[in-house]
Amino acid sequence: MDYAKESLRKHYEWQGKIEIISRVPVKTAEDLSLAYTPGVAEPCLKIHQDITESYTLTRRSNIVAIVTDGTAVLGLGDIGPEAAMPVMEGKAVLFKELGGVDAIPLCIRSRDTDEIVNTVRLLAGSFGGINLEDIAAPRCFEIERRLKECCDIPIFHDDQHGTAIVALAAVLNALRLSGKQRDGVSAVINGAGAGGIATACLLLDCGISNIILCDRNGAICQGRDDLNDEKQRMAKITNPECRKGSLADIMKGTDIFIGLSSLGCVTEAMVKTMNKNPIVFPMANPIPEIMPDLAKAAGAYIVGTGRSDFPNQINNALAFPGVFKGALLARAPAINEAMKVAAAQAIAGYIPDGALSPDYIIPSPLDRSLAASVAQAVAKAASESGVSQIA
Amino acid sequence: MDYAKESLRKHYEWQGKIEIISRVPVKTAEDLSLAYTPGVAEPCLKIHQDITESYTLTRRSNIVAIVTDGTAVLGLGDIGPEAAMPVMEGKAVLFKELGGVDAIPLCIRSRDTDEIVNTVRLLAGSFGGINLEDIAAPRCFEIERRLKECCDIPIFHDDQHGTAIVALAAVLNALRLSGKQRDGVSAVINGAGAGGIATACLLLDCGISNIILCDRNGAICQGRDDLNDEKQRMAKITNPECRKGSLADIMKGTDIFIGLSSLGCVTEAMVKTMNKNPIVFPMANPIPEIMPDLAKAAGAYIVGTGRSDFPNQINNALAFPGVFKGALLARAPAINEAMKVAAAQAIAGYIPDGALSPDYIIPSPLDRSLAASVAQAVAKAASESGVSQIA
Repeated sequence: MDYAKESLRKHYEWQGKIEIISRVPVKTAEDLSLAYTPGVAEPCLKIHQDITESYTLTRRSNIVAIVTDGTAVLGLGDIGPEAAMPVMEGKAVLFKELGGVDAIPLCIRSRDTDEIVNTVRLLAGSFGGINLEDIAAPRCFEIERRLKECCDIPIFHDDQHGTAIVALAAVLNALRLSGKQRDGVSAVINGAGAGGIATACLLLDCGISNIILCDRNGAICQGRDDLNDEKQRMAKITNPECRKGSLADIMKGTDIFIGLSSLGCVTEAMVKTMNKNPIVFPMANPIPEIMPDLAKAAGAYIVGTGRSDFPNQINNALAFPGVFKGALLARAPAINEAMKVAAAQAIAGYIPDGALSPDYIIPSPLDRSLAASVAQAVAKAASESGVSQIA
Repeated sequence: MDYAKESLRKHYEWQGKIEIISRVPVKTAEDLSLAYTPGVAEPCLKIHQDITESYTLTRRSNIVAIVTDGTAVLGLGDIGPEAAMPVMEGKAVLFKELGGVDAIPLCIRSRDTDEIVNTVRLLAGSFGGINLEDIAAPRCFEIERRLKECCDIPIFHDDQHGTAIVALAAVLNALRLSGKQRDGVSAVINGAGAGGIATACLLLDCGISNIILCDRNGAICQGRDDLNDEKQRMAKITNPECRKGSLADIMKGTDIFIGLSSLGCVTEAMVKTMNKNPIVFPMANPIPEIMPDLAKAAGAYIVGTGRSDFPNQINNALAFPGVFKGALLARAPAINEAMKVAAAQAIAGYIPDGALSPDYIIPSPLDRSLAASVAQAVAKAASESGVSQIA
């Protein structure tokens, strides 16, 4: 199928992929008096007395905003807020269909960090969480950091943390299958944008300490003078031996490759230089850093990509619906590291030992009970780490 | 029924009165490839090339934001954005159930005009229209004026223009029934806030030139030194004889009373001083300026209130669903005077001559075909006044 042509045709037919409906009847004057005036004054006053009642008397307990400025949309780049909307509506569809979470896209007409932060900050009382999406690096880091400081609801940049969670899930199951230990493996992550940096941080948190990040100039290490603030920070906590060199140099003798760049930059020869039974996750979309058949031919034991037409689709849709549902269930004011790790473990653990195989280390994002399982794990982690606001 | 108690119970049960659903299937990998990646890139690019395609490829052609700062909610006053949400969700329910319009409440955590304007301005690309709601006067005037200047979609402060439209509709049918002429009648409007001022302006536009606005200090006229900018402007275009005095003084010899204040300030004695067969619309909510039975006993020919438990409920729900649906159908960048007048005429004209009676000058807001009729009239007026962007 020509997805481009058919998708365009379908979009004209759909006239929007989401819709807002009423959960209450409005047939009689009495219906109106209960859902609207005069009855509605009472729930208003209740929330005015105790703002946490907004979670029990309005939709706040189940609704998130998907916020973008349209500057880093898919592989399309900076196409603007209106043009980003079809992706955001698609995301809202997945939120609802997979996680049962109501999500509304808000595409902001600004590339200014202050303006984006202020807009989201001022709307935080209307939502139970904020999913930041497709905002260009490094601006996305500052926006998320500042919003976390000033908002009382979860702020979650999916390109960072959603990507990190699904990459970690894939790594966990790859290690489980290969029998390798977390503290014994080395990993190289190609791409030091939002996804690459967040993935490195989450892997570090989980005891995979030997990680090297690469950008287009090669290994990120202390002493390089072309690094932005985020990369400088990463140079300090990754690459313990301070190795220098190109991606090809760094891949030699490595156990795990994770590709989060936009370049088809990995060759069979490079995979052949990795350790025995290497784990190769070329996650670039839509074109993986190396095609799965080539990686396999070069000796890769396990291969996973971001695409639905190959085995092991390492897609954010595995994580965000359940992560937000879990945070909302726990009424957590933030999504902390424990909750992210719990999400990754739930995704990995969703496949039982007997079913695990090199071509099946990742469940299907369309599996309806996956998000519920992730949500449960995330809510539990919120509770155990003391951030749940539900008794 | 104890509406307060029952409404609260229902709100706990409902857990939100609106919900966001998917309009597209997500069962198979192919579904995902069409609604999301990789197919979704094509509609994105189409909108990037031509931003007006956002109206055909996303939900923009049918979705509005309901924006408030929670400072003038019902009769409750400044209760804050979170506490305003039950009202805004109720409004979203009416948008959908009556007009078929998707509406999402955005309650802004700010009382600052600049912050509110900026927030809405930056989100205008995600919606087909903005319904401003329950923002305190006089700030609401500046916010609306500035948003109209900087946004390419309709900005409509319902407390002003929705109120004006339904009041005009009631006046039109009252005149139709009583045989009085627009240019021969005099009207007094009590309350010089958002609703009162907008109603005066719309009545003026429709040829009812003898109008006096009153606030709590009496008739608004030139020379008073306690008037804000808006009231000063009104002093110049209303009260042609520059009458001074209290509401009681001004009501003497008047044909029409419209109450848009929050005070039970009209007595039977005052109604008795009006012209023969007076038209009395005490629209204050929840307690009318005078109860209908008292007004009738004092000689009122036609009485209408804002309440559902008396005849002639002059409620904004008669207007806003159809007004926005019409503006969206015409893809109008604004809702102009012609469109507002057309809406009022459509509401009034919805009752055929033979059915019109003193107790039936206003159709039921629950009548499912009313909004469609209003929408058609509004879209036609948009087209005829040259603001429609549909061929």
